[in-house]
Amino acid sequence: MLGKDVFYVKDYYIMLFTQTFIPTLREVPADAVIASHRLMFRSGMLRKLANGLFVYLPLGLRSFRKVEAIVREEMNAIGALEIKPTVVVPGELWKESGRWETMGDAMLRVKNRLGGDFVVSPTAEEAVTSLVRDALASYRQLPLTIYQINTKYRDEIRPRYGVMRGREFIMKDAYSYHTDEASLDETYHAMGAAYRRIFKRCGLSVIPVQADSGAMGGSDSEEFMVESAIGDNTLILCRDCDYAANVEKASCKPEAVLADSLSPTQASAVPALEPIHTPAVKTIEQLCAFLKTDAHKFIKTLIYRARNVALDLSGSPGVGGLAKRKSSPEAPLVYPEAFFAVAIRGDLEVNEVKLAAVLKASEVSLAADAEVVRLTAAPLGFAGPVGLKSLPLVADLTVTTMQDGITGALVADTHYVHVVYGRDFVPWLTADLRTVVSGDPCSLCGGELYEKKGNELGHIFKLGYKYTRSMQVSYLDENGQTHIPLMGTYGIGIDRTLASVIEEHHDDEGIIWPMTVAPYQVIIIPITYAGPVKALADTLAADLEQSRIEVLLDDRNERPGVKFKDADLMGIPYRVVVGEKNLARDTPVVEVKRRGEATFRLLEVAKAAAELNRLVYRELGC
Amino acid sequence: MLGKDVFYVKDYYIMLFTQTFIPTLREVPADAVIASHRLMFRSGMLRKLANGLFVYLPLGLRSFRKVEAIVREEMNAIGALEIKPTVVVPGELWKESGRWETMGDAMLRVKNRLGGDFVVSPTAEEAVTSLVRDALASYRQLPLTIYQINTKYRDEIRPRYGVMRGREFIMKDAYSYHTDEASLDETYHAMGAAYRRIFKRCGLSVIPVQADSGAMGGSDSEEFMVESAIGDNTLILCRDCDYAANVEKASCKPEAVLADSLSPTQASAVPALEPIHTPAVKTIEQLCAFLKTDAHKFIKTLIYRARNVALDLSGSPGVGGLAKRKSSPEAPLVYPEAFFAVAIRGDLEVNEVKLAAVLKASEVSLAADAEVVRLTAAPLGFAGPVGLKSLPLVADLTVTTMQDGITGALVADTHYVHVVYGRDFVPWLTADLRTVVSGDPCSLCGGELYEKKGNELGHIFKLGYKYTRSMQVSYLDENGQTHIPLMGTYGIGIDRTLASVIEEHHDDEGIIWPMTVAPYQVIIIPITYAGPVKALADTLAADLEQSRIEVLLDDRNERPGVKFKDADLMGIPYRVVVGEKNLARDTPVVEVKRRGEATFRLLEVAKAAAELNRLVYRELGC
Repeated sequence: MLGKDVFYVKDYYIMLFTQTFIPTLREVPADAVIASHRLMFRSGMLRKLANGLFVYLPLGLRSFRKVEAIVREEMNAIGALEIKPTVVVPGELWKESGRWETMGDAMLRVKNRLGGDFVVSPTAEEAVTSLVRDALASYRQLPLTIYQINTKYRDEIRPRYGVMRGREFIMKDAYSYHTDEASLDETYHAMGAAYRRIFKRCGLSVIPVQADSGAMGGSDSEEFMVESAIGDNTLILCRDCDYAANVEKASCKPEAVLADSLSPTQASAVPALEPIHTPAVKTIEQLCAFLKTDAHKFIKTLIYRARNVALDLSGSPGVGGLAKRKSSPEAPLVYPEAFFAVAIRGDLEVNEVKLAAVLKASEVSLAADAEVVRLTAAPLGFAGPVGLKSLPLVADLTVTTMQDGITGALVADTHYVHVVYGRDFVPWLTADLRTVVSGDPCSLCGGELYEKKGNELGHIFKLGYKYTRSMQVSYLDENGQTHIPLMGTYGIGIDRTLASVIEEHHDDEGIIWPMTVAPYQVIIIPITYAGPVKALADTLAADLEQSRIEVLLDDRNERPGVKFKDADLMGIPYRVVVGEKNLARDTPVVEVKRRGEATFRLLEVAKAAAELNRLVYRELGC
Repeated sequence: MLGKDVFYVKDYYIMLFTQTFIPTLREVPADAVIASHRLMFRSGMLRKLANGLFVYLPLGLRSFRKVEAIVREEMNAIGALEIKPTVVVPGELWKESGRWETMGDAMLRVKNRLGGDFVVSPTAEEAVTSLVRDALASYRQLPLTIYQINTKYRDEIRPRYGVMRGREFIMKDAYSYHTDEASLDETYHAMGAAYRRIFKRCGLSVIPVQADSGAMGGSDSEEFMVESAIGDNTLILCRDCDYAANVEKASCKPEAVLADSLSPTQASAVPALEPIHTPAVKTIEQLCAFLKTDAHKFIKTLIYRARNVALDLSGSPGVGGLAKRKSSPEAPLVYPEAFFAVAIRGDLEVNEVKLAAVLKASEVSLAADAEVVRLTAAPLGFAGPVGLKSLPLVADLTVTTMQDGITGALVADTHYVHVVYGRDFVPWLTADLRTVVSGDPCSLCGGELYEKKGNELGHIFKLGYKYTRSMQVSYLDENGQTHIPLMGTYGIGIDRTLASVIEEHHDDEGIIWPMTVAPYQVIIIPITYAGPVKALADTLAADLEQSRIEVLLDDRNERPGVKFKDADLMGIPYRVVVGEKNLARDTPVVEVKRRGEATFRLLEVAKAAAELNRLVYRELGC
């Protein structure tokens, strides 16, 4: 068990503080608003090269490598095979998959001196799939799971929060290839289990949530989130059951028909559609005030522009002139641009990720005002589903229960009342498009849903044939028949995982490392590094090295207070203080304190190494 | 000692052939002209993503990581501290150092989405120096040696020879900072010693040579070369002593005055300068034929264009209008462009690297014909040092011994004879500029010099103040005085080192790995992986794992011949064949063969693991 988790190299186990480079800071960097950012800088783990670009210093790199080693161990344990592709990859591969067009500006594109297109990899589905395409011949080579732990780049517009949202980072990305769904499912679940072990070993509490697979395409997908006040993601959780989903994917129980609407059988009792004059009333709020009613009585109609739509639109309203095209010979057939009207209950919001998934579009966004006016032939604020012929209408499921609604009439200063779904308009498509919010009922148990902010540390998902088909990967089965393999993809951000450990394990004085990812496991602080104190500190360090415990020995000529403050900041789990007075006792002792605990205890010098050994390995779980 | 040199992770020690991904090839890739390129592909270590961009497959990555670990160990052993900067770094830093202008097109420049300039690092003097600038305060922090093992990119126009000359590669690059020359010298020599150990441990025969530090600037410099028929470098070696230098830097013993020239005291005996008519004679060859004499009698005069000249040219001929400028506020003062006449004996070549070093220029090249005509006011082919006022004249040392030379007369169809150095012309500067060739006498012992082609694996050199001054790094000494630190830089190409091991250790059948960098140390080949043969193969593998010996077990359902061929190709040091007949003997045995040796021997099954353990660790040198 010794040496596990570490990159075993000589001169790794004992480090003198004066021989390394740990520039601790008393002041807090101005732009560091979260604990991990602040503490990684203050403890001398990290420095900034430019916005979103950071240098790990020796102390930071030790912890970084431990997270990396844990990830590597768990990947190897499930049979994933490590490879090392390049970081700069040919743009051609991205054109083949179609993502050259769809990845957006966050992908860093480079032209080389010969004019060739290259990409500084943000992810590697294409590179790994091209490798597998060249090497795969027979079903006997499958399943095959390949991974790398390598540099990635995403050209964030506003990088912030230190390495939590940097531009360059290290990602473990794995890709699996399979002959059938059962095999993909097995690897997908093995990955899910490995991810749970990885985060547990790092001391992290993660929330696995159902996720949208976004521009990636595919079906099953799970994200591993940590709660964070500055999280990029909104998680929807149930108070009563285990339901957890990214808001982009979250659904809720279809609500019972609202008390003041009517059941379908009563629809015939609703008066006929009636236009009313609503001068200068353009927003839902104005309309509510004007009609003295609530937003949930309205059918809100929004016009969206979608890009690279793969959904078949033939025969749908208003798309007569549209034709599917390919951006390159290998790219999939898509409508480069199409517009849609989306109807939703007035108190709800459209979830654009859901909408993009329904339309199989790379991107959706609200249409520009001028486009809205052109497409609806009405002034802004008066769009509505009734009589709309110029656009395909997509209705959220909530709209399908509305039996006496209010909506824009496609005419200036006019709305319709008594609008009945199915009677007065029929959408082209209905789908779950609404953004779930706190208080909605859980789709599993009906319990109350609530929100948390979270940061994504890992993501696993089934891609199906998306890349293997577009990039023409195939293998021969036992009968010599050609097939396309199924694929899965699995990522973990190493930097973000490390920063999240600090977010979860710190106090006002500094970091409190879990033993598994601590840069050193023991710090020895001699009150003055001279004479018998030095001799004992050196001996103790050497004894600990024998059991491969990693020791930082603070040999600086500094006041004890300075050394203690730095030790707290760096968060090394066990602090051993060696002082002259304690050594002069009849039974000489040293002070031992677990970082994060308030009190120290005295250990007999003769037994100190053995006891520390026990304490450290207990926490390592070996 | 166990576990040394390896990235210790679970599931590292035993691998079943069918569980990994080793796509061996019988055919040789068409573009693979050298052994390492051919064998890395054939043995399934490597695949190509695009020209100069390669993917290490699992087998290749194991050996790669071992080379990396050896480098890391030796760096740590001399107190160098590992950090991890980003691969993409801000262009600003390169503008500060002045290399944004001088690095040429091999540096991959990127504009990000916000229009900022970035570089995919080809080296990291700037990034590391900027880090040190921010963190360095006191002399007590020095000396400081920092290194990384990280991705580098050079945009080679013609990448070839596999990873020997790829575009993206992994480099170990170290940078040291010092208060004085003695400290820099100490680290420089410790690095030189570490490099010798690294290459020795990898099983490589390297030739350390004196080197020019090129665009890097600086003074002392040593390159670590391996002999290679396709080497980029020409090495000059002495048959009689240890002298070894890159041809770019090589000097030789100044020759005695040639038998047919005169001693200085006889110069007065040389007739006066005399113009002769040489119609349509433009080359040295034509002139030799015309005058029936040898090239070494001529003083050849060449016109060079130099860029970013830092040498002070004030008062030199023909540069009246030139002024030093900065390309950016932080860049050093240089003449952006200047022209020079260079005189050298007619049978010799000017070494442009030496010339650039003498002129402190970023780049020198022969001037265009039109420039030559304009600057010499003479037709092409008639340039000469006598009466040349329009350009600074730089003479090679060989010219200073010429007492009766022939040279162009700066007039059409005219040459001078009886030209005497010092009498008829005085150069602005004299310097050693000649390219040394085979047969020249050694500058140390007078022995005969000869040439070899070589590839550079590593390079160490003293940079002096080049970056620390331009990037304004400083520290306070014990008296509170501000100083600029001295700097050194030290690189090793990991990919190239690995490929060179294969170049030095292979035969017609495949690779013959040195134990230290072998992907596995033992391959077990069961003739048929079933029954007692399987049982013994599994047991033997498990026994070897106990002593941390890395085992590939060929469990494929293939003919023995196929397995033997692949084992030879992969070059795993010890091959153990387990067969039914050998197990059925009274004393069951297995066949053991060292790759590269012709014969196998039989080991008793009961003693096989212990004996293999002894053999493997003997070669590991533990």
